[in-house]
Amino acid sequence: MRYSELFGKTLREAPRDEESKNAQLLARGGYVNKLMSGVYTFLPLGTRVLTKIENIVREEMAAIGGQEILMPTMQPKENWVATGRWDDFDVLYKVKSPDGREVALGPTHEEVVAPLAKQYVQSYKDLPLYLYQIQTKFRDELRAKNGLLRGREFRMKDLYSFHSSVEDLEAYYEKAKQAYAKIFDRVGLKALLTEASGGTFSKYSHEFQVQVESGEDVLYHCSKCSFCQNKEIVSADLDKLKVGEAGVCPKCGENLEVVSATEVGNIFQLKNKYSDPFKLTFLDSDGQTQTVMMGCYGIGTSRLMGTIAEVLSDEKGLRWPEEVAPYKVHLVSLGKSMPFANEVYHKLVSAGVEVLYDERDCSAGVKLGDADLVGLPLRVVVSDKTAAENKVELKARNSEEVRVISIDETLEILVK
Amino acid sequence: MRYSELFGKTLREAPRDEESKNAQLLARGGYVNKLMSGVYTFLPLGTRVLTKIENIVREEMAAIGGQEILMPTMQPKENWVATGRWDDFDVLYKVKSPDGREVALGPTHEEVVAPLAKQYVQSYKDLPLYLYQIQTKFRDELRAKNGLLRGREFRMKDLYSFHSSVEDLEAYYEKAKQAYAKIFDRVGLKALLTEASGGTFSKYSHEFQVQVESGEDVLYHCSKCSFCQNKEIVSADLDKLKVGEAGVCPKCGENLEVVSATEVGNIFQLKNKYSDPFKLTFLDSDGQTQTVMMGCYGIGTSRLMGTIAEVLSDEKGLRWPEEVAPYKVHLVSLGKSMPFANEVYHKLVSAGVEVLYDERDCSAGVKLGDADLVGLPLRVVVSDKTAAENKVELKARNSEEVRVISIDETLEILVK
Repeated sequence: MRYSELFGKTLREAPRDEESKNAQLLARGGYVNKLMSGVYTFLPLGTRVLTKIENIVREEMAAIGGQEILMPTMQPKENWVATGRWDDFDVLYKVKSPDGREVALGPTHEEVVAPLAKQYVQSYKDLPLYLYQIQTKFRDELRAKNGLLRGREFRMKDLYSFHSSVEDLEAYYEKAKQAYAKIFDRVGLKALLTEASGGTFSKYSHEFQVQVESGEDVLYHCSKCSFCQNKEIVSADLDKLKVGEAGVCPKCGENLEVVSATEVGNIFQLKNKYSDPFKLTFLDSDGQTQTVMMGCYGIGTSRLMGTIAEVLSDEKGLRWPEEVAPYKVHLVSLGKSMPFANEVYHKLVSAGVEVLYDERDCSAGVKLGDADLVGLPLRVVVSDKTAAENKVELKARNSEEVRVISIDETLEILVK
Repeated sequence: MRYSELFGKTLREAPRDEESKNAQLLARGGYVNKLMSGVYTFLPLGTRVLTKIENIVREEMAAIGGQEILMPTMQPKENWVATGRWDDFDVLYKVKSPDGREVALGPTHEEVVAPLAKQYVQSYKDLPLYLYQIQTKFRDELRAKNGLLRGREFRMKDLYSFHSSVEDLEAYYEKAKQAYAKIFDRVGLKALLTEASGGTFSKYSHEFQVQVESGEDVLYHCSKCSFCQNKEIVSADLDKLKVGEAGVCPKCGENLEVVSATEVGNIFQLKNKYSDPFKLTFLDSDGQTQTVMMGCYGIGTSRLMGTIAEVLSDEKGLRWPEEVAPYKVHLVSLGKSMPFANEVYHKLVSAGVEVLYDERDCSAGVKLGDADLVGLPLRVVVSDKTAAENKVELKARNSEEVRVISIDETLEILVK
């Protein structure tokens, strides 16, 4: 892609109405554009990152048997009344048609997926079943000032599992945990597995939390053992500690730290919570009617993008991990090196390398600054000096080391 | 994919509340499930078809310079007031938050894309520009009884082009026409390029119409020359003719037929219609302020899926063209041939062939009937007889010819 043709140029200054680091960086880099508070357009670079994140999620969901579906945004009021959430779900958007029909805009899909499963699940032979979707969700957040970390309209993957027993649900729940760990690892994030409230139906749910200064959650985390709990469930003596303070881990007795974090995933053992209102049952091998046990597993894919921007960035700009970067290489031509740079561009593209090629007629300072801000993993600079030697400068975004090498050597490194 | 594990089994009878052929077939085949009138869940098979259609659209949009973005569903009221459509767009869903904010649920995105472009387009050097998205759209249709052909919530690709002159817009408009022709060709549909109302801003717009009995549009189409007009713009003498009647082509004098059709794509030269209200201008090479000329180009991807189901089907079921079929091969094991069928399955999958493998313990009649209903392009049957000879039966959905051949021969045919 030629940078001069790319829609969504970098901005020198962050928009005045953006307070959060992720929104400031993503807006400046040309990844997103705010339409309203908590509502963003994904520009071409942002759409590429989001697609890559969502495809990683797809791969890991398929690896644990997930079948992709696409449920509607508009959901019938009666389903939400059936679960008691029409009046209780405080961020639910409600839409009324002129003919009086009322629908909810899906903030989550238990009210659709449970009655859907009921239409196809009859016997134990139809279980277990794992259905997921990746879709735009809606929540009427009163305060949506944290960029992609808290949107009114946001992207989410939600997986629902259906089981013939609690034991089977528990075994799959552990598998899902591992799939989630893989996803966060692949997108370059260190996510803490955190115990959180299980609601009325389970002792705990689990959250995947990433330590971020601007995070809205508070965690009590032991760096020695695996103890990590959300503030909402910690014991009274831990709850006295504030962010930045240290305490004693109730599990191993070592150092406990209190940190701010943002939730990037959460998983619940729903058990019969949504099966009961929709009478989602099955016939077991003895012909007896049993209740289907459900689990649900969410990842906010746009929030994940915001979290990566928040965590993997420095004073110069973004630092995308290779698996989610919109392009792998930022090719920059300086001085009068365009003819040679064009040659490099065509060779890289022919070799299947994803390249963003800055061929604009502007200063080296602007171009190299933009390369740091956009934050692709690798930078290839062609200058009059390197062109004279038939060479390029190769530099990783995460390193200061610059190598002056030939195109062939560059290709060898890039096409592994 | 093993059929026994696939979510969304075939139904013997079409749901009683489905009147349209496309919805009946897609529901029976396990592709979609109706949640409310005009609102469908895409089951795993349906999601695969939709994804393939949308990826074809992506490829053809990229081929004419389209850059993919993702705009929000929720759109500020003030943008719709600015274009005069807040009160005039009769199928607009409006949502009111508790705090009084009012937003529209996007039925189309001129009100977002024009002010978005304004933020990045300054000079003639920023033009032309081609932005598209593939996204869920919302229209509060009073009558939504035609399955995927008229949804309240549906999938759509919308491309918007931005130009420095009407001539440049017109040239791109012709390019987009050709890209559309390629898309409909690739998904197996014969689409008629039809002149339709251009609104207040152009003489004509163009629709791509597919002849379908249940179609909501009426076309006057000459089978000899290229004349094709929508009823809404034909002359009074043509307008007297009814569907099924013949007339005289006003262009070439040959036979004109009056047919029912469904619109699968439409393209408009918007010119300054949306640039003006949002003051979308640019500085030309003389430093003069000029108005950006816009075009818009829509394809309903879910409606396309419904149209394919409606047109490419017979009394036995669906008949997917290869490029959009959820799987390429329907492998069926009959009798006690499972061990050999398993071997065939693994060989096909290893060779990269997309296979749906019906290994259920049920009758040949049910399995072969389901294969016809699901409608994959090729059927591979393994029976006791073929297994004894290390062979399979290969049959195309569109042909009665059955070939008895070895696995290797099958692979040679399938992996081209």
